[in-house]
Amino acid sequence: MTIRIFITGGTFDKEYNELNGQLYFKDTHMQDLLSLGRNRVPVVIKTLMLIDSLDMTPKDREQIVQECRECEEDKIVITHGTDTMTETARGLAENIKNKTIVLTGAMIPIKFGSSDGLFNIGSSLAFVQSLQVGIYVAMNGRCFNWDNVRKNKQTGIFEEVR
Amino acid sequence: MTIRIFITGGTFDKEYNELNGQLYFKDTHMQDLLSLGRNRVPVVIKTLMLIDSLDMTPKDREQIVQECRECEEDKIVITHGTDTMTETARGLAENIKNKTIVLTGAMIPIKFGSSDGLFNIGSSLAFVQSLQVGIYVAMNGRCFNWDNVRKNKQTGIFEEVR
Amino acid sequence: MTIRIFITGGTFDKEYNELNGQLYFKDTHMQDLLSLGRNRVPVVIKTLMLIDSLDMTPKDREQIVQECRECEEDKIVITHGTDTMTETARGLAENIKNKTIVLTGAMIPIKFGSSDGLFNIGSSLAFVQSLQVGIYVAMNGRCFNWDNVRKNKQTGIFEEVR
Amino acid sequence: MTIRIFITGGTFDKEYNELNGQLYFKDTHMQDLLSLGRNRVPVVIKTLMLIDSLDMTPKDREQIVQECRECEEDKIVITHGTDTMTETARGLAENIKNKTIVLTGAMIPIKFGSSDGLFNIGSSLAFVQSLQVGIYVAMNGRCFNWDNVRKNKQTGIFEEVR
Repeated sequence: MTIRIFITGGTFDKEYNELNGQLYFKDTHMQDLLSLGRNRVPVVIKTLMLIDSLDMTPKDREQIVQECRECEEDKIVITHGTDTMTETARGLAENIKNKTIVLTGAMIPIKFGSSDGLFNIGSSLAFVQSLQVGIYVAMNGRCFNWDNVRKNKQTGIFEEVR
Repeated sequence: MTIRIFITGGTFDKEYNELNGQLYFKDTHMQDLLSLGRNRVPVVIKTLMLIDSLDMTPKDREQIVQECRECEEDKIVITHGTDTMTETARGLAENIKNKTIVLTGAMIPIKFGSSDGLFNIGSSLAFVQSLQVGIYVAMNGRCFNWDNVRKNKQTGIFEEVR
Repeated sequence: MTIRIFITGGTFDKEYNELNGQLYFKDTHMQDLLSLGRNRVPVVIKTLMLIDSLDMTPKDREQIVQECRECEEDKIVITHGTDTMTETARGLAENIKNKTIVLTGAMIPIKFGSSDGLFNIGSSLAFVQSLQVGIYVAMNGRCFNWDNVRKNKQTGIFEEVR
Repeated sequence: MTIRIFITGGTFDKEYNELNGQLYFKDTHMQDLLSLGRNRVPVVIKTLMLIDSLDMTPKDREQIVQECRECEEDKIVITHGTDTMTETARGLAENIKNKTIVLTGAMIPIKFGSSDGLFNIGSSLAFVQSLQVGIYVAMNGRCFNWDNVRKNKQTGIFEEVR
């Protein structure tokens, strides 16, 4: 069983630009994280985009849905900025009924020493293997159904809606 | 739902002794890892022992079984040295039939910069939440039933027996 | 011999704000760095300000000069943003003739896993101990006299003027 | 001005062997450290040996002396295990009178997240550039003349003899 990993950007993959002091995207660090975790689950990684999720357009979300629908794997992990992760999850839920898809991200870029990214990718790969068909958001050890999760803007923490 | 975490030692918690250059145990680093992962799943941590799993005695394994049986949680993660992890898993399987227990560890001490520990604890907390009752070994993204796993001594990798 | 360390901010001490994704200042990490380096040189640390050096005003520079003049130590290390480090060095050189002062900084925040900060503070503490009276800029292993150094805006590298 | 760096091993370059849980030598990490520090001082690195300094023989020390004498650079940094660093320093002092040589090391392997190695190499490169001809031991921010330093076996700290 191979797991598909789609990269869309978000805090997860942000880096520090030494020349201007800004955060930016260069490449995904997914392969580095999987090597660090000595991952032994077969995965195929594809970078769809590298953007801040606040900049994600309806067209970007269409592309994500289409890639998830057309790939041959039926277990998918998507890295995504946290600000609009639940919105993309809703779009996936409306369109894809036969796959297990877990969206995840990070509160701190994984290039920082203190990132939660390795923890989150570890738990996402586990959830996607063991959960039944559906669309989920996995952050900080927890896994939420797509229709019962929001990011609390004050605390930055993902929580149930009801 | 609270998850019980039992600490037994293993590579996971080894540290470097500056005075004599040996690896040794001082404390568990589980709380540090959970903070790094910004874990939001309720857990209760208890250190049962801090030993190399090659030094684990039948009496130690009895203690682990007893603690798992007697704790009120029915979802349990155990950190354990990799060399005899499957042996402890067997002892648990023979004695405990009504809980989900995931044994995990690390190939590299988590105090090292390049440890797989954060990845493994992330996936173990996910597996223990989503798998049905049983005894499992979770290492490097994969999860094995207790009766179908061995550590390959040549490669250091956990694999199916059959 | 005690060395005075003055903190003014700069890339050195920037952190990532999880809630809004911006870099900001919270505290200096100097004590953490010195502990990591197991520093055994007596130091006294004082935070004068925590600002980006592009935001540094003439009044801020006056304060730095005054603090350097009035402190009892005659060996001083100053952490400083790299963009206007040489400007502050000039102000110090015009006003202080009897102390050894080394300005240093970092290209990458020290809270990032890949910062040059520990290397730079190690070399700055060494230069300040062994160089004669004067004002210096120490970055990335090199040490420049205050009147023969500039930051190359294209490459981000400090280099001689002539 | 180019600085010669000789590698001899010691805690500095030790790594963790995942298969047997022992510390061992594979390669030097000097180039990684210099890259991390964004070092801009011209250096030439040569690995003479990769051994624990307790295993260093008179013949090994002869080789170190000979390499220091014969290399064309007159500023040299040597990485060395801490246990017999002062012994090698004495051998160098007896034989080499016209070069600046700084011996350094680490209390914690640099592959560990919490190593003092980057700090020490930063300060050693600074000391070797700014000190006059002589043999020195630089550890944890301090620099000692070869004939006035010992490693305190109880504390692990380098200190003056008198």
